[in-house]
Amino acid sequence: MEASSYIFSTEVTVRDYECDIQGVVNNANYLHYLEHARHEFLISKEINFTELHNAGIDLVVTKVEIEYKFPLRSRDKFIIRLNLLREGNLRLVFIQDIFRLPDEKLIARARVTGVATRNGKPLPPGNLISRLGLE
Amino acid sequence: MEASSYIFSTEVTVRDYECDIQGVVNNANYLHYLEHARHEFLISKEINFTELHNAGIDLVVTKVEIEYKFPLRSRDKFIIRLNLLREGNLRLVFIQDIFRLPDEKLIARARVTGVATRNGKPLPPGNLISRLGLE
Amino acid sequence: MEASSYIFSTEVTVRDYECDIQGVVNNANYLHYLEHARHEFLISKEINFTELHNAGIDLVVTKVEIEYKFPLRSRDKFIIRLNLLREGNLRLVFIQDIFRLPDEKLIARARVTGVATRNGKPLPPGNLISRLGLE
Amino acid sequence: MEASSYIFSTEVTVRDYECDIQGVVNNANYLHYLEHARHEFLISKEINFTELHNAGIDLVVTKVEIEYKFPLRSRDKFIIRLNLLREGNLRLVFIQDIFRLPDEKLIARARVTGVATRNGKPLPPGNLISRLGLE
Repeated sequence: MEASSYIFSTEVTVRDYECDIQGVVNNANYLHYLEHARHEFLISKEINFTELHNAGIDLVVTKVEIEYKFPLRSRDKFIIRLNLLREGNLRLVFIQDIFRLPDEKLIARARVTGVATRNGKPLPPGNLISRLGLE
Repeated sequence: MEASSYIFSTEVTVRDYECDIQGVVNNANYLHYLEHARHEFLISKEINFTELHNAGIDLVVTKVEIEYKFPLRSRDKFIIRLNLLREGNLRLVFIQDIFRLPDEKLIARARVTGVATRNGKPLPPGNLISRLGLE
Repeated sequence: MEASSYIFSTEVTVRDYECDIQGVVNNANYLHYLEHARHEFLISKEINFTELHNAGIDLVVTKVEIEYKFPLRSRDKFIIRLNLLREGNLRLVFIQDIFRLPDEKLIARARVTGVATRNGKPLPPGNLISRLGLE
Repeated sequence: MEASSYIFSTEVTVRDYECDIQGVVNNANYLHYLEHARHEFLISKEINFTELHNAGIDLVVTKVEIEYKFPLRSRDKFIIRLNLLREGNLRLVFIQDIFRLPDEKLIARARVTGVATRNGKPLPPGNLISRLGLE
């Protein structure tokens, strides 16, 4: 996918404590990076994750599919690019791909499915959708 | 799947620092739990992850698919049950399901694909396979 | 200090993902272990950290002093032993020492100072004190 | 201490997953921030932590004293300012203070003592010292 076909991107640098005994970023930390990028995206749309939570609405991840193509190492710079799809009536799907900088090597491809909930019950993402520009 | 049809299981208790602002275990921590269970499984087969690494062999996760069914909360006890499949010539697939205890509520289902590598190159898991009882 | 002179102890095993590039437990994780032990201690006194938080009362750490004597490595078992002192009118001081098992090698010595707060303001630990057996 | 009296500083933004049930950054994460700042400082002096490790030399933290003055919350920006002292023949002491941005509110004060080791034995920090400008 062309860089221009994503709707959002954010850059991050690997911190040493995110690497494990193998000298590479531990797999779980990629989920942290992806979450960070989604929250940055929401903020760019003026949707604050913590404020939503305090208002009783949570954005809940229901599924993650991630392919690890090449490991990130200490101090690597990388970019997380993101697209957003609607799936059915309730689900949002974030397409999130990670590329190392500056060589644009593909590091990981992820597909993260989420739903909005209010007090634990799924909520049609209604006005969230319009604020996210999905209509 | 019946508890009896898994080949390995290990029990864990949620620690408070694994929970996030929403009061539930952060998604990334489930990958830590799953890794922990795989390493416990390998240890039960007398395969030590760190020793392998020091011998130049790494077990590398190439793909994770995880469905989050219900969140774990502070101090929940849970069990991770595991099965192992061979896929093609090079890949091992860990089926890993998480159930809360004692009510056996399904928390997450995961499918984790890995390969063995030596100095970064895929290695047919050969004698690993026989030690893991997959032949 | 004799093992018998501590008022509480809890055992933990190092998980591989808690180790860093140096092959030893990352310094920050010791603070997680210490927090875990304090919460286990409170639970043993029927004080639930999360319930307190939901009731508007937080136990806040104001100071940590920790000496790292010897590193923990992958899969080491260890015990965290704890004592509790009152300091002035508001502060609780947890003495927390970590020993590797089974050889009882001293791993770390810590002194963790905390206060109870209600809506961000220090609270004399009053009935907490009596429940903790400090009177 | 005046901002101008520190020898190094680096800016960071809190990521949501670094916050815990109380909605504030978990205490252990401050040690991650401090480590990150020390490594950035070393890099600014052309000393790479991972390369040192691969050459058999580790910089080992032997003591951390940290006072938590005010909590960081989701998305807070902050700056870590650093000074470096020599203590005795073997020890380096990092003075590391964290201030929230842009209001410069003091968040934490830390004093981190470390030694250089080769194969686990303390090493007079000799030429490290000259590269760090401590002579």
